[in-house]
Amino acid sequence: MITLAVQPLSAEAFRPYGEVIAATDAARHFPINAGNTERYHDLARLEPGPEGRIIVSLFRGQPRLLPFTVAMMERHPLGSQAFYPLSGLPYLVVVAPPGPVPTATDVVAFLASGQQGVNYAPGTWHHPLLALDAVCDFLVLDRAGAGPNCDEIVLSPAALIPALD
Amino acid sequence: MITLAVQPLSAEAFRPYGEVIAATDAARHFPINAGNTERYHDLARLEPGPEGRIIVSLFRGQPRLLPFTVAMMERHPLGSQAFYPLSGLPYLVVVAPPGPVPTATDVVAFLASGQQGVNYAPGTWHHPLLALDAVCDFLVLDRAGAGPNCDEIVLSPAALIPALD
Repeated sequence: MITLAVQPLSAEAFRPYGEVIAATDAARHFPINAGNTERYHDLARLEPGPEGRIIVSLFRGQPRLLPFTVAMMERHPLGSQAFYPLSGLPYLVVVAPPGPVPTATDVVAFLASGQQGVNYAPGTWHHPLLALDAVCDFLVLDRAGAGPNCDEIVLSPAALIPALD
Repeated sequence: MITLAVQPLSAEAFRPYGEVIAATDAARHFPINAGNTERYHDLARLEPGPEGRIIVSLFRGQPRLLPFTVAMMERHPLGSQAFYPLSGLPYLVVVAPPGPVPTATDVVAFLASGQQGVNYAPGTWHHPLLALDAVCDFLVLDRAGAGPNCDEIVLSPAALIPALD
């Protein structure tokens, strides 16, 4: 079984998979509301897909224990799916590029901070929510609409996320 | 000048203005991810409007001091606008129903908890972001697209939000 190297999440490293949602200087931002508020504008490509619409939901995830075995992945071929953490705690993001069914060597693991959201582009392979340390809520933006929009595969051999330093 | 009574935010009281976004038992919810995660599903009517799309942004608001004078309101006639607090702190929501230009007697003030978001229906009059106590970030879902989508009015006479108990 491959052991994954967990890397810090950054916009650059995540580009093959979608966007990082964060209020950083690198994002387009400008003052609004007579200077009271800074708007970090249009931070992800929300994609409702054919005959779809973007909906907002909240996910409440139980924490995972490390080391953790990544034994499956899923993708949403028709629409994007974004997660933003509401508990201020780090969490794991495990992805593989859109395209053929991934093998363990295609899988990349990121540690996101509690001030970084992610948006999976349509078709990006990803592991379901991986909260750490505590029950964590996430705001989720994804697609509602007709048509099958979730493919799930077994990752064989599996990949291991080690305990973090 | 009218002094507003600040009431706790609830889904019922907010219904004329839009939806409260919260993970409550009253929301439709169900387990996903092999039972790891509870999904509170499709919590607001996100409305991109004609030729519009829903975008995600982050707003960083400076705190307001109470008492605060509500001297203006705005509305977005073409699309909805949703706010979800990321700092876990209470904030104020000041609204008037969609329709004619409001007067001070039409204005209603709610205190939202740090675990309650709001979605303004298209046309709902509202005051811009009213963070309290600290600089607060909010995740915002609103409309991008052609056409004028912000009307602003002077509220005359103004309305006063008193200091909270």
